[in-house]
Amino acid sequence: MQVDLGNVLDTAPAHGVSREALDRLDDRVAAAHDRIERGRAAGEHGYESLNLPNTTDPAAIRDAVSRFDDPSAVVTVGIGGSALGAATLTDALESDVDAYYLDNVDPEAVERLLDSLNLASTVVNVVSRSGTTAETLANFLVVREAMADAGVDWTDRTFVTTGEEGNLRDLADKHDLPSLPVPDGVPGRFSVLSTVGLAAAALCGHDIEAVLEGAAAQEARLSDSLFDSPAYAYGAVSYALAERGMQQNAMMPYAESLETFSEWFAQLWAESLGKDGLGQTPLRALGATDQHSQLQLYRAGPRDKFVTLVRAAERDDVAIPETDLDGLAYLGGSSLGDLLDAEFEATEASLAAAGRPSVRIELDRVDEYGLGELLYAMEAACVLYGELASVDTFVQPAVEWGKRAARGLLGGGDFEEADAVEEKSRLVVE
Amino acid sequence: MQVDLGNVLDTAPAHGVSREALDRLDDRVAAAHDRIERGRAAGEHGYESLNLPNTTDPAAIRDAVSRFDDPSAVVTVGIGGSALGAATLTDALESDVDAYYLDNVDPEAVERLLDSLNLASTVVNVVSRSGTTAETLANFLVVREAMADAGVDWTDRTFVTTGEEGNLRDLADKHDLPSLPVPDGVPGRFSVLSTVGLAAAALCGHDIEAVLEGAAAQEARLSDSLFDSPAYAYGAVSYALAERGMQQNAMMPYAESLETFSEWFAQLWAESLGKDGLGQTPLRALGATDQHSQLQLYRAGPRDKFVTLVRAAERDDVAIPETDLDGLAYLGGSSLGDLLDAEFEATEASLAAAGRPSVRIELDRVDEYGLGELLYAMEAACVLYGELASVDTFVQPAVEWGKRAARGLLGGGDFEEADAVEEKSRLVVE
Repeated sequence: MQVDLGNVLDTAPAHGVSREALDRLDDRVAAAHDRIERGRAAGEHGYESLNLPNTTDPAAIRDAVSRFDDPSAVVTVGIGGSALGAATLTDALESDVDAYYLDNVDPEAVERLLDSLNLASTVVNVVSRSGTTAETLANFLVVREAMADAGVDWTDRTFVTTGEEGNLRDLADKHDLPSLPVPDGVPGRFSVLSTVGLAAAALCGHDIEAVLEGAAAQEARLSDSLFDSPAYAYGAVSYALAERGMQQNAMMPYAESLETFSEWFAQLWAESLGKDGLGQTPLRALGATDQHSQLQLYRAGPRDKFVTLVRAAERDDVAIPETDLDGLAYLGGSSLGDLLDAEFEATEASLAAAGRPSVRIELDRVDEYGLGELLYAMEAACVLYGELASVDTFVQPAVEWGKRAARGLLGGGDFEEADAVEEKSRLVVE
Repeated sequence: MQVDLGNVLDTAPAHGVSREALDRLDDRVAAAHDRIERGRAAGEHGYESLNLPNTTDPAAIRDAVSRFDDPSAVVTVGIGGSALGAATLTDALESDVDAYYLDNVDPEAVERLLDSLNLASTVVNVVSRSGTTAETLANFLVVREAMADAGVDWTDRTFVTTGEEGNLRDLADKHDLPSLPVPDGVPGRFSVLSTVGLAAAALCGHDIEAVLEGAAAQEARLSDSLFDSPAYAYGAVSYALAERGMQQNAMMPYAESLETFSEWFAQLWAESLGKDGLGQTPLRALGATDQHSQLQLYRAGPRDKFVTLVRAAERDDVAIPETDLDGLAYLGGSSLGDLLDAEFEATEASLAAAGRPSVRIELDRVDEYGLGELLYAMEAACVLYGELASVDTFVQPAVEWGKRAARGLLGGGDFEEADAVEEKSRLVVE
């Protein structure tokens, strides 16, 4: 994996950050790295996430899910960080086992999914640290009932990942369900390299050991200079661009297999860095599709964003057939991959020509190892950005208000937030 | 359909725009409406889009696709505005016919799709106004060859939507393919209410007449006051918020069926308004999922965005079973829909309590009529915003540079943009 900062420099057609400013920033990277290493050594909350390549035991995960032989599908019931990491892996990798995510409480979508599944050969993978997340538990209750209605013993088909205590832990104990704990000190959005992200991947037959090896390779590159670590290079330059007004970061992989990765990245970035009036807004884009959708804005709109272009050096390819269509002969003899690469380079150059910065991230391949590298590097980049911006990277206080309001509205207790909902202003145009 | 601006007002907990400022803006809305009506009456480029509820003939579309009896799948080959409108409709509505979109040139994704289809019962719906779009034509050539390899006569299975002349028009004429023209004066991102968006929907068995009726209902509400038109209310207040620094617009439907609508909206907003250094950046979010992902940033990050909350008043629902799990009894007896509604109201109130503006859009139901209303209203809102901001809503100049570069890189001619790609700066960290 490599990160190319060329189109961020002010010497490039793109401009942006001067090389001297990056060198000065590197002193702060060294101090931040020192803080991060101390946090990791002490197992501090959040920093512990960056230890997962060493602390996660893939054999324990394999053992815990070994009860489920050859499932046809895995349905992960979880929301936010309890689903996005696993989804990133299983959506990026091919498998004979279908992976689905109940990460919302849309009744029509839930019903459609349950109707389409053979529940007798489906594994339900329930993930909630607290064991009380309303959306997750409601969906789990619905799935459990659907299994009962289909004559399937849900206790034979359910795997639980949760904290050391709580509803789900009690349930797992009571019914002797296979189960693993959410690791301590690891917020949901940083949990992909633990059971939370790897159990579904293991059930789908993916090489979770290689995911951890890729992550370990990036861990080994963390150092006191952004010029020695792809992860820190990305984090530092994202911060430097935000400081210069580029408060939006468009994550634009040129691979459909990485579409869910953009969602995972968006949560990582938004929830970790968006607080105290600070934070860089993640935008989700997909190359080449969004060249025909978002690129107009990125190239000619406000100078408030940069684009992160991601691609893999190797992939399976499909030849474009020769054609008798006028003016399209140039396509014949090349491949869809060649075309995608040309679009990638053209977009990068197009942004540079318009003076808009971009960062290029290249993986060798979208496989288990490459994903491990990418996910770990983005996490370390995020932690570094948090240090440089002096935000509290590992908390998410702003989601709590709404949780209390929703609970109050449903009669789950007396919460003043629910009363506030009643006071809504109205100015209706219909 | 209704638009509620209550949480945009500065009198609301949310603050934002004063009622007096909205009243003053309404004078400009009247002038903009006048300009729009003149453009529509004269059939000017772009403005013509808002005439589609009257000018599109659904019977002609039904007739043109009638050759294809009961397909198992429809694969639309198109990119950007040639795919997103159709995808919005077919992803939102249930059908026995599977709808797929080849809107990228990722070889692995294309191969996976083609391997999964029964090509003998699949209709290929090729959409390109120019008939030369490289991504679309390359994919079409690949699909055509896959059909030949499978022993399927592609000329029996292909429907073409393209301009009056060009490669695809010649092809359709030569092989006597069923075909309809892209309407004049309608940019791709405004074309959902024409053949471009409706042919795939018709092939999937949807009520395209009702889509046009819903659109016509919103057309009838256009008037010289934002207080009389949901579309103009939305467009005017989006503009007013951008003027006050809210340059990002997070489109957050609380319905998974509207997930693709967010992508369609993002193209509409980005490509129409993002030029000359101006433009409001669309963010794509999904409720309730993104409460656990993006909401932290929206509520506590920079004051540079507002949230558009969309929901349907009616939907199919799923009861949450009673439970013996401690602390979750409050969920029993309610439904997933109740929970989703509670999450919606909680998020809206949570934003207001933090002084962050939001707009609420309510549909009666996510059905053909409701989608027609929503899509037309957003288009009219976008055109109004463009008038108020003095941008040239109907052009997209910034996508051309990259197209020439990509073509040059593939050997399709001599383009100086391709040379610029070679000059890329590099600062690689690996």
